[in-house]
Amino acid sequence: MKGTVGELGEFGLIRELTSRLTTTAAVALGPGDDAAVVATPDRRVVASTDVLLEGNHFRRDWSTAYDVGRKAAAQNLADIAAMGAVPTALLLGLVVPPDLPATWPVELMDGLRDECQVAGAAVVGGDVVRGATITVAITALGNLGNREPVTRSGARPGDVVAVTGWLGWSAAGFAVLSRGFRSPRAFVEAHRRPEPPYHAGPAAADLGATAMTDVSDGLIADLGHIADASGVVIDLRSGDLDIPAQMRDIGHAVGVDPVRWVLTGGEDHAIVATFPSGTKLPARWKIIGEVRPPAGRPQVTVNGAPWEAAGGWEHFGDA
Amino acid sequence: MKGTVGELGEFGLIRELTSRLTTTAAVALGPGDDAAVVATPDRRVVASTDVLLEGNHFRRDWSTAYDVGRKAAAQNLADIAAMGAVPTALLLGLVVPPDLPATWPVELMDGLRDECQVAGAAVVGGDVVRGATITVAITALGNLGNREPVTRSGARPGDVVAVTGWLGWSAAGFAVLSRGFRSPRAFVEAHRRPEPPYHAGPAAADLGATAMTDVSDGLIADLGHIADASGVVIDLRSGDLDIPAQMRDIGHAVGVDPVRWVLTGGEDHAIVATFPSGTKLPARWKIIGEVRPPAGRPQVTVNGAPWEAAGGWEHFGDA
Repeated sequence: MKGTVGELGEFGLIRELTSRLTTTAAVALGPGDDAAVVATPDRRVVASTDVLLEGNHFRRDWSTAYDVGRKAAAQNLADIAAMGAVPTALLLGLVVPPDLPATWPVELMDGLRDECQVAGAAVVGGDVVRGATITVAITALGNLGNREPVTRSGARPGDVVAVTGWLGWSAAGFAVLSRGFRSPRAFVEAHRRPEPPYHAGPAAADLGATAMTDVSDGLIADLGHIADASGVVIDLRSGDLDIPAQMRDIGHAVGVDPVRWVLTGGEDHAIVATFPSGTKLPARWKIIGEVRPPAGRPQVTVNGAPWEAAGGWEHFGDA
Repeated sequence: MKGTVGELGEFGLIRELTSRLTTTAAVALGPGDDAAVVATPDRRVVASTDVLLEGNHFRRDWSTAYDVGRKAAAQNLADIAAMGAVPTALLLGLVVPPDLPATWPVELMDGLRDECQVAGAAVVGGDVVRGATITVAITALGNLGNREPVTRSGARPGDVVAVTGWLGWSAAGFAVLSRGFRSPRAFVEAHRRPEPPYHAGPAAADLGATAMTDVSDGLIADLGHIADASGVVIDLRSGDLDIPAQMRDIGHAVGVDPVRWVLTGGEDHAIVATFPSGTKLPARWKIIGEVRPPAGRPQVTVNGAPWEAAGGWEHFGDA
């Protein structure tokens, strides 16, 4: 495809984008009308919205449009999974500068579509407008399949804390890219294109998870939301965190303790949940800590003490 | 409230925004978790997304934050109604500059909440990020109540075309504001805060509407989508269009034929639908034309001839 978004025009671009989509049995009415219609077999829909901005959440020189699409979809679909639901649909609100090559939004849509397919969902609608900064606003929908939603507020003292998926890989990849390198490839790829364990969300709900979230802002920050909402202390055992040898090597090369990436790095969209003690967890879940009664304020501790470093990433912060 | 968005911080702002929300019986789980859960009694959800940008879709010197909230919600909730559904929920993706007064997003949220209440819906979730341009990305959800969705593709030759709500008022108000005036107030208000006839969407579905849409881009443009999707010609009778005396006065004052506002002005979110000939329509519906077999390409005509002026508003166009 040649030319810019402005040359293609709004309707031309929308035609091009929707022509690339696939559908699923859950999509009763897809793009092209005032609204889409999606099946919700258990009479409830799970819905979540996230916004990604160029420069803030992605860089075009570090990530292809396709990767941004994969990542934007993954981030939202992981929120659905973290409620114990199966993702079904995704809507895209897209802001594009008129001088942007038309291939960019087209490849973005390919990425959204493909990540949706990984999760069993489909892109069902959207809106495209002209503006200065590329902005990708995503809403994901999902189906609880008669499970009760697993919120952040159900963690109880005595529960174990377990995680599945990747932790710190995206942050390590970011550290590599920030220093101008493109390898080790596995970590750079993890930063460009997270692989949330979607299936683990509904599976955790079925296993009796008492609280659950995906790790988008960092393990300590996201567990902090569970600690706050549940009124508990969550204590992590750093020795139980999985730190691959290659991540240690990167840490050594760039002068960062890789434990920091695992504890505070976001964007991998691992799924972390609390379970009643004694729950038999499948091998892909790693127990990394436990829930304790609140001693003073709810918080997350590491080996019984507050983690000294910043606990997460606040988008408006100056840090 | 004092200070800027940056001073309040992401989590402070989100707390402030969510503290102002109201809920409905359909909201099983509201803001504050990874995702919201909304009831969908007939096992389907209707979903639509729109994006509004400062400078492109609203101006802070013309509209208060509250009005932008009302308008942004109205635009999306009208899309739900135009499928024949009752709006239930709304999600907000918001981009705000850090130096924006914190009152702005707070009043925006008040507007979103109040417009949702008019339509019977509630704000159930969202995301707030920092960026250069105020961007309001909305996803609205709705419930068809066992009605079949009324799409754009069902218009058949012989159907009548009927409209309910306001047409051209927002465009006339825009013309007034563009020339530096603040009155007549009714038209300026119509531009700042549209009043879509939400109830008319499900009612039209119950009356047997064959095709339906809300008028967001202009009557000719939006009926053009129905003509295209249905493969028909839609002929409007200009003499049947309701042009209030005061709109004629404004047209006279600014040198614009007010028929143009009624035919090409968007943003009032009137609801226009096609019905089988002979359908007994309530008094608030006005029959303004009829559906004809395609003579050549599908199109919208006025009194049997193409409307000479531009048919609508394409966001990427240079016009």
